[in-house]
Amino acid sequence: MTQSVDHETVVSRLLSADEILILCHKNPDGDTIGSGTALCLALQKLGKTAAVLCSDPIPAMYAFLPITVFDGSFTPHFVVAVDVAGIQLFGDRNNMPQYAEHVDLCIDHHGSNSGYAYETMLDDHAAATAELLTALIPEMGVEITPDIAACLYTGIATDTGCFRFTNTTAATHRAAAALIEAGADVENLNERLFECRSHARMAAERMALESLEFYYDNRCALICLTWDQIQAAGVAGAELEDLTSLPRSIEGVEVGLTLRQQKDGSYKISVRTGHDTNACNIARRLGGGGHPRAAGCEISGNLDNAKHAILDEVKKELDRSASLNAAES
Amino acid sequence: MTQSVDHETVVSRLLSADEILILCHKNPDGDTIGSGTALCLALQKLGKTAAVLCSDPIPAMYAFLPITVFDGSFTPHFVVAVDVAGIQLFGDRNNMPQYAEHVDLCIDHHGSNSGYAYETMLDDHAAATAELLTALIPEMGVEITPDIAACLYTGIATDTGCFRFTNTTAATHRAAAALIEAGADVENLNERLFECRSHARMAAERMALESLEFYYDNRCALICLTWDQIQAAGVAGAELEDLTSLPRSIEGVEVGLTLRQQKDGSYKISVRTGHDTNACNIARRLGGGGHPRAAGCEISGNLDNAKHAILDEVKKELDRSASLNAAES
Repeated sequence: MTQSVDHETVVSRLLSADEILILCHKNPDGDTIGSGTALCLALQKLGKTAAVLCSDPIPAMYAFLPITVFDGSFTPHFVVAVDVAGIQLFGDRNNMPQYAEHVDLCIDHHGSNSGYAYETMLDDHAAATAELLTALIPEMGVEITPDIAACLYTGIATDTGCFRFTNTTAATHRAAAALIEAGADVENLNERLFECRSHARMAAERMALESLEFYYDNRCALICLTWDQIQAAGVAGAELEDLTSLPRSIEGVEVGLTLRQQKDGSYKISVRTGHDTNACNIARRLGGGGHPRAAGCEISGNLDNAKHAILDEVKKELDRSASLNAAES
Repeated sequence: MTQSVDHETVVSRLLSADEILILCHKNPDGDTIGSGTALCLALQKLGKTAAVLCSDPIPAMYAFLPITVFDGSFTPHFVVAVDVAGIQLFGDRNNMPQYAEHVDLCIDHHGSNSGYAYETMLDDHAAATAELLTALIPEMGVEITPDIAACLYTGIATDTGCFRFTNTTAATHRAAAALIEAGADVENLNERLFECRSHARMAAERMALESLEFYYDNRCALICLTWDQIQAAGVAGAELEDLTSLPRSIEGVEVGLTLRQQKDGSYKISVRTGHDTNACNIARRLGGGGHPRAAGCEISGNLDNAKHAILDEVKKELDRSASLNAAES
């Protein structure tokens, strides 16, 4: 079991360590890379040897961050994981066999953190690990430089959808203010992080919009992508995942459905709902599950069967919600 | 000429006034409505009679704000304009003939403010008029209630594209933090303001993506909408305007073009460029103009002619930028 530690302990551990390896999670996002790079820069400013390691390549959109990738040129004596909630999230550990097994310190904001590290600093009220580090780095006696500010802003902005997601708090905005004052060039960063859509993303959106259908007085919207379309567009995991929020985002839509055909022909269905209906109720009766506003299930058979089955469940849930509302009023 | 006034003077004017009419600008956005409603609530909390007036109807997406619309039930003795940069922006003044001519006080953040009011409090560093009011309302001795916070957050968030646009500063984030602490329900507000796309918007995006073409090694992207398509989709001004940022937002695109056919058959062309090229150079030689990164022109004749003419100018500008870059390196 991990030991829970406070800022003061973390600062003392980092200040007394050297040859520090910083581990990020697999499929790296802006928070794990931004936090890892910011911590690495801060440790280097203190004259320490430090580098960052991730099982997957750094995505092109984060290549502008001044990351020192671990190249084996030193033997790590202290291992810190940033934004990694569980040991399985290190990914394929071929390039870090011994390190991921003995993590000295974990700095994270995921309430689900499994406690795999020897010591853990966890704050699940923080919108991003980078929000924690915005406080921690000055406590290490390191001034936040424009480079460090850019890394931390990247972490916070990407984990909050640019301050749009529900994890955004007053403290998140205060951290952003401090980073802008420290020299984060938000014009440039926001353009890099949010104004650039990949060709694959555009292709995915086009496919989605062309397949858009409405049901039940426009209360339900559905998009459908066949395996062949997905292959032809060259659309990968994250772009497809993002599409699942599209149908629900349309004015007046309470239930948004995304049907994606799998290689074996079956349909993976994502269900997103508004405040009045329960996505899990819809998915559960088809053998799936999830959360009240985001759930999923899988249906084998052809498209007509899949649509028919899921739309039946949507109808039941819309009716249930309508009768509840009628009873209340 | 208007008198420029500071916070203290504005507070004293507002505290000594009563029967206050607050004017918003035409085609009202989140900032003018949010600011007007927040100021109205603050004045009402002080026991004053106040109401808000706009030449256009309040858009449905802002109908949730607790706005007191002026219904003629009192005779205004003090007129305040919020977020209105010039007298022509009051719009059709049929419902406010006498008031817009004699504005006692203007509170605004547009550097272009024409100074039409008797006194003006202007801060063009503020991202939104609502950012100014976040400081001003407590100075009036009024606590920011959750309702006022929701209005002011709406103004700031909409004017900054949810903290994405270049007008966003550290002060903007600090204002947002204060409003969240005062009770602005950002989960609910962000969903209302940013997660909801109109059917017309979806139709416009679909049209745009279906017409998307690339030129010059994908350095130029072009979308084209005919008059018939625009009519069929029922797409109005703001949704069409928003589309003009789409082609430039695609990975690797330096010049984004949007061609919109007008009723008379001519094409209105919007040019958006990245850091390396000048939109105004492109538009100017076709009789248009604008800014370095956003410009426009109009070309009569058929679509092939319009495309040919604008793409020729794009080519020249891309070549000019390439030779500049070559000379520098």
